[in-house]
Amino acid sequence: MTALHPRGVFSAALTPVTEAFAPDHALFVAHCLRLLAEGCDGIALLGTTGEANSFGSDERRALLEAVTAAGIAPDRLLPGTGVAAVGETVALTRHALSLGVTTVVMLPPFYYKGVTEDGLFAAYAEVMERLADPRLRVVLYHIPRMSAVPIPFPVIARLRAAYPGTFTGIKDSAGDLAHMEALVEAFPGLAVLAGADPLMLPLLRKGGAGCITATSNLVAADLAFVFRHFADPARATEVAAAQARIVAMRNRASRFAQMASLKALLAQRTGEDGWQRLRPPLLPLSAAERSVLLDG
Amino acid sequence: MTALHPRGVFSAALTPVTEAFAPDHALFVAHCLRLLAEGCDGIALLGTTGEANSFGSDERRALLEAVTAAGIAPDRLLPGTGVAAVGETVALTRHALSLGVTTVVMLPPFYYKGVTEDGLFAAYAEVMERLADPRLRVVLYHIPRMSAVPIPFPVIARLRAAYPGTFTGIKDSAGDLAHMEALVEAFPGLAVLAGADPLMLPLLRKGGAGCITATSNLVAADLAFVFRHFADPARATEVAAAQARIVAMRNRASRFAQMASLKALLAQRTGEDGWQRLRPPLLPLSAAERSVLLDG
Repeated sequence: MTALHPRGVFSAALTPVTEAFAPDHALFVAHCLRLLAEGCDGIALLGTTGEANSFGSDERRALLEAVTAAGIAPDRLLPGTGVAAVGETVALTRHALSLGVTTVVMLPPFYYKGVTEDGLFAAYAEVMERLADPRLRVVLYHIPRMSAVPIPFPVIARLRAAYPGTFTGIKDSAGDLAHMEALVEAFPGLAVLAGADPLMLPLLRKGGAGCITATSNLVAADLAFVFRHFADPARATEVAAAQARIVAMRNRASRFAQMASLKALLAQRTGEDGWQRLRPPLLPLSAAERSVLLDG
Repeated sequence: MTALHPRGVFSAALTPVTEAFAPDHALFVAHCLRLLAEGCDGIALLGTTGEANSFGSDERRALLEAVTAAGIAPDRLLPGTGVAAVGETVALTRHALSLGVTTVVMLPPFYYKGVTEDGLFAAYAEVMERLADPRLRVVLYHIPRMSAVPIPFPVIARLRAAYPGTFTGIKDSAGDLAHMEALVEAFPGLAVLAGADPLMLPLLRKGGAGCITATSNLVAADLAFVFRHFADPARATEVAAAQARIVAMRNRASRFAQMASLKALLAQRTGEDGWQRLRPPLLPLSAAERSVLLDG
């Protein structure tokens, strides 16, 4: 059996924005370096948590370039490149490849809803045919509550058969452990990554590959500890304690809007007020919410 | 009372694509000219029916330029310019303005779901602040089954109050006449445009402004007739006959996937096979479906 790829703890990194709502490169690079230092295996930048679809293609490219220019190895980056228009998905993925990044997280085209399995397959196939780059590895991105375009099992099977060695993973952000376990069972060799922090541990026990998660922006060290030691009976107490902290932080950040909460907590931790801002249509917490969250 | 703007029959024009899935400019311009000749007041290009969100920003700009270069007056064009990223919405709208197009149809940012009313208002406000162009007129685009981001009444009220004279219309594609009527009642002076062809007539009777619809690609002359004569008792029989043809075509095109059906019917009518193609994730009808549709 081939090793699962990607495998480990990947942070769905938050993106700080300037007062003009542009990605703040310096603050972001510092954040990525901190996440890696805390034990993340890599950074899944430009995803849902990273507000990627609130940024234009030029902004996305510039942010990825800033990260690689800062010396973060391309093989530790899993940028999101899937957008509504297949042609722009191709362009963003090609750009990532041009920087040496070979593994991307790819949303399905997400404007049209209720698309057929044939149509969804055709969209991903169109991207593959136009890129035709054997280095490329794709993590499918199943997040029906945001994309409103789920990725059904038959589509995964067809893509893996049609492009062997390319569709190596899936980020499952449906929030349902049973669905993740079913993926592990149905697709031997597919790296199934939990999209919710508390579910990484139970998923690892069933053969999952790790996580790409939001709370990791604040509990990366605990996630990394759980990932490395979950199977070691001698560490069971410490693993349980780390897992409890992960669950607690997830719950704390879910009382109000999750991304705004994570940003408020990160602003508090780093002392960088710039972390408070989100790009519309997302908004920062109100002063009252912030006060409840930070005192909590 | 100010006249409603925009007012009339606007075709949510289909976009023909080449074998490489690029917009086919020549075929599209010919289609727009035909729609205007059949009596449309204008063309709402680059909307949902036009597969706009399957095209990149460059392709959208080029298509709009091709139409204006062909001599179609900018005041007869209502291009869609709303995308997931506010910055790209600004850029597309600014580009339309640069061509003399002053009225656009604007989706809300549609990646994040469950956004707050404050967040939705902030997103539109951000576009307005960055454009700051007094010529601009915006038709809000309410199409919850596709965008999954409805536009609530309080947001409409706040936008109209904050930017007087700018948010002059709404395209209501929720398919519910009662919702359209409620808009007419709640917002005097707002041009409410039906997003479903059969609903234009009952909406006009309640003070609606017209329609922006898909079936108009095939029944523009009938829609134009209904629009011009719906209030004339002497034409009641002809109006009823035209309305019956509109309903029949709508039903015919709804048996299978609507946009694929409309394209198949247009291919048959024009003899241009290029009309058959759709860009993934949408697909043309199967041969069997096509045969049922075209023989029907």
